[in-house]
Amino acid sequence: MSLGKQETVAAAIKWDEAGLVSAIVQDANSKEVLMMAYMNEESLSRSIESGETWFWSRSRNELWHKGATSGHTQRIVSMHYDCDGDTLLLRVEQKGPACHNGTYSCFTNEVAGVAGTDGSAPALSSERFAMLNQLEAVIAQRYTERPEGAYTTYLFEKGVDKILKKVGEESAEVIIAAKNKDNDELRCETSDLIFHLMVLLRERGLSLDEVMAELGRRHNKSKQPK
Amino acid sequence: MSLGKQETVAAAIKWDEAGLVSAIVQDANSKEVLMMAYMNEESLSRSIESGETWFWSRSRNELWHKGATSGHTQRIVSMHYDCDGDTLLLRVEQKGPACHNGTYSCFTNEVAGVAGTDGSAPALSSERFAMLNQLEAVIAQRYTERPEGAYTTYLFEKGVDKILKKVGEESAEVIIAAKNKDNDELRCETSDLIFHLMVLLRERGLSLDEVMAELGRRHNKSKQPK
Repeated sequence: MSLGKQETVAAAIKWDEAGLVSAIVQDANSKEVLMMAYMNEESLSRSIESGETWFWSRSRNELWHKGATSGHTQRIVSMHYDCDGDTLLLRVEQKGPACHNGTYSCFTNEVAGVAGTDGSAPALSSERFAMLNQLEAVIAQRYTERPEGAYTTYLFEKGVDKILKKVGEESAEVIIAAKNKDNDELRCETSDLIFHLMVLLRERGLSLDEVMAELGRRHNKSKQPK
Repeated sequence: MSLGKQETVAAAIKWDEAGLVSAIVQDANSKEVLMMAYMNEESLSRSIESGETWFWSRSRNELWHKGATSGHTQRIVSMHYDCDGDTLLLRVEQKGPACHNGTYSCFTNEVAGVAGTDGSAPALSSERFAMLNQLEAVIAQRYTERPEGAYTTYLFEKGVDKILKKVGEESAEVIIAAKNKDNDELRCETSDLIFHLMVLLRERGLSLDEVMAELGRRHNKSKQPK
């Protein structure tokens, strides 16, 4: 990029008295917040130029290329600044743990006793949709191996009509759950519907990747001016 | 909670020279980062006691109950602090837009020209299910901002009955496509069904994470010996 553009960005930032701006780092895949750090103008420039994160270490008082010694670099997927220009949000592809303590995220300490919460927040996960990967693998395995007694084997043995009857049944149950305003029921029935859709895709030899690609095409089309 | 617990949390925080700590606010539903603000000890106490966010306004120099005037409050779902105790991460249920400018998130300004990016974030192609993240964010944004002419706005305006009619219609089309042994058709109809299911989840305030967790519970149960 041209130096001109970087200067424009630097001018839009409201640097604090120490010449720093807060930078929130978020996992672009799982969307978990990984860490907070600070940038000065030079680290911002280097981040933009290299596509990897550079920060200013307030404790060591020096420029810091994240991962330079640990190898746990962060490839920048996108960079935004907020409405008053005093915070950056960087979505990254994180190599290895983000935290110097070796944990996936720096935010591992839960504050207990917040009113209205039960202190059992869902654990941070490096992959939001890991379960889809796992389920897909199990379904594929059962399609091939047909282990006796497994429900998925039963569906494949009965054939596509049985699977489609379940798709119809589960979607009706989703509708009923939503009309009952019952989110526990809706969560269960949506899970069941997704599971049976995945069994159907396996039976038909259509991959989830092809479905995701289709969602992408529709999404991008919908963003074009009409 | 007891005052004792709050004092423990306050003691774990590394307050800056101004007596403040950074607080990242994340949508517990879509996992998008919404805003950054600051807390002093009193706003932390009030947040913990009330289960809603209270901050310290550095520009107005006063305690600030987020949403007190706009109604755009944030119910705290979880609160964490990071490894060096100088940043809080709050997952919230956000009522209305988080930004005082009326946008869903404060981070609307993209920095163009970062090396390796094409300036059209989020470019999450390295992740299989990235499209689900993107779609979820777009749906959450449209739920809040209701941009005119968008199909998703139309669905939200029409309400849950319209969304459920589409769920029924798309699942019927999935069944027909499978019976036609037409995988192009099946790919399109499955995408449509997933999209409308996601719109339904947003309308009902149920997160994809909860559905994924449910799939995990079922999957793990099905692996137990019977």
